[in-house]
Amino acid sequence: MKYDIIVIGDELLIGQVVDTNSGEIARMLTLQGWQLGETRVVGDDASLAEVDAVLMTGGLGPTKDDITKGVLLDYFGGELVYDEAVAANVERVFKARGLELNDLTRAQAWVPSSCRVINNLVGTAPLMWFERDGKVLVSMPGVPHETITMMREAVVPQLVARFNNGEHISHHTMVVAGIIESKLAELLADFEAAMPEWVKLAYLPSPGYIRLRLSASHVDQRLLDETMRSLVLRLHELLGDKIIADEDLSIAAIVGKALAARGMTVATAESCTGGNIAHYITLTPGSSDYYRGGVVAYSNDVKRNVLHVSAADLEAHGAVSEPVVRQMASGVALLTASDCGIATSGIAGPGGAVPGKPVGTVWIAVAVGEHVQAQIHHFAGNRERVIERATTTALLMLLRLLTERD
Amino acid sequence: MKYDIIVIGDELLIGQVVDTNSGEIARMLTLQGWQLGETRVVGDDASLAEVDAVLMTGGLGPTKDDITKGVLLDYFGGELVYDEAVAANVERVFKARGLELNDLTRAQAWVPSSCRVINNLVGTAPLMWFERDGKVLVSMPGVPHETITMMREAVVPQLVARFNNGEHISHHTMVVAGIIESKLAELLADFEAAMPEWVKLAYLPSPGYIRLRLSASHVDQRLLDETMRSLVLRLHELLGDKIIADEDLSIAAIVGKALAARGMTVATAESCTGGNIAHYITLTPGSSDYYRGGVVAYSNDVKRNVLHVSAADLEAHGAVSEPVVRQMASGVALLTASDCGIATSGIAGPGGAVPGKPVGTVWIAVAVGEHVQAQIHHFAGNRERVIERATTTALLMLLRLLTERD
Repeated sequence: MKYDIIVIGDELLIGQVVDTNSGEIARMLTLQGWQLGETRVVGDDASLAEVDAVLMTGGLGPTKDDITKGVLLDYFGGELVYDEAVAANVERVFKARGLELNDLTRAQAWVPSSCRVINNLVGTAPLMWFERDGKVLVSMPGVPHETITMMREAVVPQLVARFNNGEHISHHTMVVAGIIESKLAELLADFEAAMPEWVKLAYLPSPGYIRLRLSASHVDQRLLDETMRSLVLRLHELLGDKIIADEDLSIAAIVGKALAARGMTVATAESCTGGNIAHYITLTPGSSDYYRGGVVAYSNDVKRNVLHVSAADLEAHGAVSEPVVRQMASGVALLTASDCGIATSGIAGPGGAVPGKPVGTVWIAVAVGEHVQAQIHHFAGNRERVIERATTTALLMLLRLLTERD
Repeated sequence: MKYDIIVIGDELLIGQVVDTNSGEIARMLTLQGWQLGETRVVGDDASLAEVDAVLMTGGLGPTKDDITKGVLLDYFGGELVYDEAVAANVERVFKARGLELNDLTRAQAWVPSSCRVINNLVGTAPLMWFERDGKVLVSMPGVPHETITMMREAVVPQLVARFNNGEHISHHTMVVAGIIESKLAELLADFEAAMPEWVKLAYLPSPGYIRLRLSASHVDQRLLDETMRSLVLRLHELLGDKIIADEDLSIAAIVGKALAARGMTVATAESCTGGNIAHYITLTPGSSDYYRGGVVAYSNDVKRNVLHVSAADLEAHGAVSEPVVRQMASGVALLTASDCGIATSGIAGPGGAVPGKPVGTVWIAVAVGEHVQAQIHHFAGNRERVIERATTTALLMLLRLLTERD
């Protein structure tokens, strides 16, 4: 099946918030083998294209209901009716949050008679399922948490039931590091040319690594499975240890798996990355198995007093220096009784540059037991990007050191 | 002027990555008073709508050039020509990164003869400016860092020069907390009804706070300024101390300003938020003026040994408890010699729930000098959302405590 996504919201058209829903929706439905025609981000109204279904997010909620429901009534006909189940749900949600109901919120219970209502399990705005000429339109609230929960719990299963075509779907994602995109594309040119036309290979580059995804769909499940197996095998032959994960994981999760496999723990000592490495590590469920904690050593006092970095080295070489970052990595491992340490000290900008150390200069050290490795990097971009790049680079450095020592 | 954004990339249509470019572009051009018709996220080709300009991001780069440049040639005519300036730029970028050039990358220097090239200052793929029937199409690479830098440095100034209509623009954003969106909308109903029709008020809600933005454009600069001034004044009368910032700042930056204004410093002691509070604080440039550092106390050992939380309390009440989180907040302030402390301990999920403490349970404490305040919260949603909500809530708690003590 083919579908469109329409995202409604003036706040998106003015760039004040970023749409993450369309990506989440596309991810879920791609796993069903469905094809997204296009995503349109629009202001007030939306027209239906030549697709099987249109998924709308946004445009609902106490301050926005009128426009969206009006457009839907114009297109699908009917009139607004009071839905007792929705009213009860609005009351339930407000009671659970300890909030007082007001008229604007209560008005969410008025829905077009031309739709089937799907009650919102995690919010007040109801989902609305319309059909016309064999096409489906589902209107959902735009709060990412509500959209994603209701997609998973109700909309995906109901769309699957409605548009089942008998094709089987298979995906395989790998994470590749240590090679740039254009080199990788050269290396895989013959491989890609020899793939069956019902298999697709996607390059998804991030700074420092590339996700590589094979996707295929076929009515013959056995042919599908065998083809995918042999293509994955061939990719391993071609790329060897450049493949750092044989599944779709974050870099922090890949490092976590490598640590857990070795029964090791890690700690973080962050200056310029300001807690972001710890944040990335702890986003992975179960990270407490291999992560004990860390120190955000933003000031020199904290580097000295908590991590026991030498005051003389801080004085002689400055905070952004090899001896300091080495002592931070070893120091935090010792402080937290961890096997490994990761440390960063750099200039994220926009201020803070000193002669010989421009914005983007970052010293990174990783320690595994007694073995400490340090590197200087120069990252381009703004503060956020320097922090992001330093985080990924530090995690990849630890992964490499762990692998090399095997 | 009115414009569209077209975002190209199969990776977006399958939801593997999230488009942040269109939001960044819209933010910049809204500040010019321009109106986005719609954003379309598409796979391979794009058609031009009835607008003044179309901004395309993505679809360029060594593995994607062919399709995009083909579509542009079909529409604008001309043929591919070798651009020496682009070739020199590609070489410069690769040399600076210490990478070896290959043929795929070198091919980026072939550009349609029908465009004017804008050299990419921070990457290899050139920007291409097309005109036809008075309409402009600018094709830009999709790497957010490149898109954003080049929008700011070249595309925005050149579009401003091309489409100047004499209207002046004014925006004013406030951050409001302690009131839910539907209540705020009720409170401001009369205010909104009385605004001139050339002024718009936008509600931009996030969990825990709402950004409120007035936007206006008028040829009469004095009328514009006076109207905005009086509307802002009226909003202050209506909302009082619910306005926590009179400009568009992150919650962490608002807390930072409050600390800096009082000459105070803060430290963080994070369990379930895993470094995210520190990360948010340190995203703000200049945060080293009021942030000294912190501890990510993920394991109980770190809570005990580094923050000196009582072993007896950890044993008796568990890590997710009021006494523990209070000692974490005071402990980290003491350890880092800071005036204030922020501490979290909770169950971000999906595992870790214990009887009486379901996933989403988070204890938060904030300390200002001797004064410590603790609260228990129950956040809905997945791991990432619980971490996010706990982070914002903790920062808002500190802000409130700082303000109350004045």
